[in-house]
Amino acid sequence: MSEYIEPDRDGISVGQVEKKIHTFAEPPLEIVLESGARLGPITVAYETMGAINADKSNVILIAHALSGDSHVAGYYSEDDPKPGWWDTMVGPGKGIDTNKYFVICSNVLGGCMGTTGPSSENPATGRPYGLAFPVVTIGDIVKVQKELLDHLGIAKLLAVVGGSIGGMQVIEWAISYPEMVASAILLATTTRHSALAISFNEIGRQAIMSDPNFNKGDYYSGAKPDIGLALARMVGHVTYLSDEAMRDKFGRRLQDRDNLSFDFDANFQVESYLRYQGSKFVERFDANSFLYITKAADYFDVGRQHGHDSEVEAFANIKAKILTISFTSDWLYPTYQSRDMVKAMKKNGLDVSFCEIEATCGHDAFLLPNERQSTMINRFLKRVSEEETNAL
Amino acid sequence: MSEYIEPDRDGISVGQVEKKIHTFAEPPLEIVLESGARLGPITVAYETMGAINADKSNVILIAHALSGDSHVAGYYSEDDPKPGWWDTMVGPGKGIDTNKYFVICSNVLGGCMGTTGPSSENPATGRPYGLAFPVVTIGDIVKVQKELLDHLGIAKLLAVVGGSIGGMQVIEWAISYPEMVASAILLATTTRHSALAISFNEIGRQAIMSDPNFNKGDYYSGAKPDIGLALARMVGHVTYLSDEAMRDKFGRRLQDRDNLSFDFDANFQVESYLRYQGSKFVERFDANSFLYITKAADYFDVGRQHGHDSEVEAFANIKAKILTISFTSDWLYPTYQSRDMVKAMKKNGLDVSFCEIEATCGHDAFLLPNERQSTMINRFLKRVSEEETNAL
Repeated sequence: MSEYIEPDRDGISVGQVEKKIHTFAEPPLEIVLESGARLGPITVAYETMGAINADKSNVILIAHALSGDSHVAGYYSEDDPKPGWWDTMVGPGKGIDTNKYFVICSNVLGGCMGTTGPSSENPATGRPYGLAFPVVTIGDIVKVQKELLDHLGIAKLLAVVGGSIGGMQVIEWAISYPEMVASAILLATTTRHSALAISFNEIGRQAIMSDPNFNKGDYYSGAKPDIGLALARMVGHVTYLSDEAMRDKFGRRLQDRDNLSFDFDANFQVESYLRYQGSKFVERFDANSFLYITKAADYFDVGRQHGHDSEVEAFANIKAKILTISFTSDWLYPTYQSRDMVKAMKKNGLDVSFCEIEATCGHDAFLLPNERQSTMINRFLKRVSEEETNAL
Repeated sequence: MSEYIEPDRDGISVGQVEKKIHTFAEPPLEIVLESGARLGPITVAYETMGAINADKSNVILIAHALSGDSHVAGYYSEDDPKPGWWDTMVGPGKGIDTNKYFVICSNVLGGCMGTTGPSSENPATGRPYGLAFPVVTIGDIVKVQKELLDHLGIAKLLAVVGGSIGGMQVIEWAISYPEMVASAILLATTTRHSALAISFNEIGRQAIMSDPNFNKGDYYSGAKPDIGLALARMVGHVTYLSDEAMRDKFGRRLQDRDNLSFDFDANFQVESYLRYQGSKFVERFDANSFLYITKAADYFDVGRQHGHDSEVEAFANIKAKILTISFTSDWLYPTYQSRDMVKAMKKNGLDVSFCEIEATCGHDAFLLPNERQSTMINRFLKRVSEEETNAL
């Protein structure tokens, strides 16, 4: 096992961020994946914020969604232009208060932000895995997170928190390691993708795999399938927004005020926005990771994987207290899906709080500043923390 | 001007279909498009069904949507495997009864099913236009239909009928030629695309234009941008369905019953369906026509083009009686858009009937068998027909 702590830039410690990696399953070790395939070594990139307390009872694990990474919040240095992806929620005095809690966030297995994924070196060939990387599941992703917590000597999580595909990991945690999870916070998520959600992912995957540069996933030494990945991102972006959000943000506004250009350039502002989002994404994301993470999300099916096709059965052993939040304009994982999940949890007598927040911004709502969401999470964590302390 | 009547196959006259073409604006003539560009000659492919009556008072013009053509209904011959695209609605004894009415349907300008479009020969070069074809609008499309009716000596339409982009043409007809249109039937349509609708079209266009075979639209002598067009079609298909329809039709059913394949082949039935729809579409449709027709739809904006940004003003001169139908699960052109349109029409004191039909099948609902829709259209046409006769 190796561990590397990135030095503070010029000694500046901004926002309590610590960036680390942990490598395990090194030869001759391997881990066995849900598919039966074996994988090792596995490196996990993770960050922590805040300080762990003496009895390690203040640990919160945050799980990121498709395009996230371990850099959940804070700045690395004073001239760092951008904070982590959930800086509106996580930090000193925020919804998830890093003055109180010790936050851990790791990049998912199959990702491309430091954790082992298809762009990592395949020890069998000395070259990037590409499609030789095994298809992983949400269960496999969580298994790797569990390995990280074991390594850190953390036996219990005050909370696991995540939205979208991050929320799937939270559900998996609560089911697979019931003794370790005191509470679970599920945001804009689902127990299984609808055919609609699978379709949009599949269109993205098709765009990538039919890009002539894709080369069966073996593109790391040449031109990349940027066009396909950009298209996939554009499709994704539209599904993360809502009719109303797009109307407010763009409507039919033109790039050139009053003039239709009568050509196929970006004429409407929304066209230009999508092209920009697509081109920006290819600079930071690996197309193969898009394939693997979306496939893991499509495969996720709580009833199928844990309850002989019954979600009620799948939730039977959960011990975590649960907070579930959905958003009115989220049409990718609509409220009815959260409601069904909550019903199945209640049939098991679980301690579940559920709230549908009125929001116009679609699936992305959980990532955006939302006082109601922050307050609800903050109070829920406070309650669980007190109850856990009293129970000792 | 030239005209060609396709002979009946083996003398079989099935379903009253007549297939014809009409060419106009032949040199030195040209028509002036909304962009200011000039175009000519223009060939229009159209079909008729039923018989025109002596006073030509039973003529119904049907306008098709993105992927339609002039073959609206009926079979060409007894061994013709497939009828026209709206055979559930149009034919003897059907909602639009060709025993009573004389139906005309023409392929749109910019299309690829017989009417002049980007795949037609550019007289300036002797080669297909490609992107040298001018960007056309819904107004231009309707102008060409008007030219066809003039040629046929038809001065008044009992009704203009269309769904989706076809509905846009109906609105345009009622506004631009108010004296010619006794009634207008608008199905699952909108007066202007939302940012969401523009986005999905733009993603389709980007898929086509970034296909390496696109070659700036000049691909007719070589490999075609099939991959891009297939992707565009997949995106379109998802937007024409609904969450509920896809759940009923596919859910999470797997190709191989119980087994996840742990690879990137089509695993879920919905994935296989989308791939099939994409590959089928490229056999019959021209990628450039996809660009031009979606652009015409995105540009369509009734208030902007006819009413100084006011739809109330745009509708001021309409004389047609109007029937508008929207569908509950249509999230591409949601009911609120039809409702806004109806409000603006009512402010002008127009004779408007509006109905939102409960349907789970999304935007495509207007194309599918629906007794309520058929009955409503049938009765509306009967009423208008009687009122027109009485008014003589």
